[in-house]
Amino acid sequence: MIKLDFSKAGGLIPAVVQDYKTGEVLMLGFMNQEAWEATLSTGKATYYSRSRQELWVKGKTSGNMQLIKEIRIDCDNDTVLLKVEQIGGAACHTGHKSCFHKKVDHESVKVIGRPVFDPEEVYNK
Amino acid sequence: MIKLDFSKAGGLIPAVVQDYKTGEVLMLGFMNQEAWEATLSTGKATYYSRSRQELWVKGKTSGNMQLIKEIRIDCDNDTVLLKVEQIGGAACHTGHKSCFHKKVDHESVKVIGRPVFDPEEVYNK
Repeated sequence: MIKLDFSKAGGLIPAVVQDYKTGEVLMLGFMNQEAWEATLSTGKATYYSRSRQELWVKGKTSGNMQLIKEIRIDCDNDTVLLKVEQIGGAACHTGHKSCFHKKVDHESVKVIGRPVFDPEEVYNK
Repeated sequence: MIKLDFSKAGGLIPAVVQDYKTGEVLMLGFMNQEAWEATLSTGKATYYSRSRQELWVKGKTSGNMQLIKEIRIDCDNDTVLLKVEQIGGAACHTGHKSCFHKKVDHESVKVIGRPVFDPEEVYNK
């Protein structure tokens, strides 16, 4: 098993998630050791939910899983970069393709693009 | 001033840094409120160094600054994405263009690409 440094932020490391084809940054999640091992062994992006304090297989509720195409590790072994195929075309719970859909424009923030799906349909079915 | 949620990880939020032209993910840094404000006001990526526990203007030592071209904020206002022009062509202290130059290959890790500069020349001059 490839070892990462989980010591710096309470046992969690950030995982940057990028569309493997377009390079668009889709989201950032956190992983503990268990999430990292699950991601490696299943090939599906698995995080640790800080709000729910539990292992979180991305897409388990919505069906919008992230299939791992490539994994990079940074120079300090304390951050990972996942290149994924995003099932359903959207990573964000708002229905937007990317969680980073708000752009800083001078002193304000503008929403870029439109949701790919309707969150009410996906999460309340 | 655009407000971010600094409450979740001891006053720090992750900042994903992407080459504004190629989309390559260069590094991940952390920001506190002061670093965020400095980034907005100066147009140069500024982080909080967790190891040195101080404000860190990226490139202050090496000259390899990051000029801000665009800033995105995520759905929860707790992560930012910086699209930057990387002066000197490399973001990593190892001399590699990206800090994410180690690729997971089955059970091992392979270094991708070669350093753009010699760290000894840049940091020990």
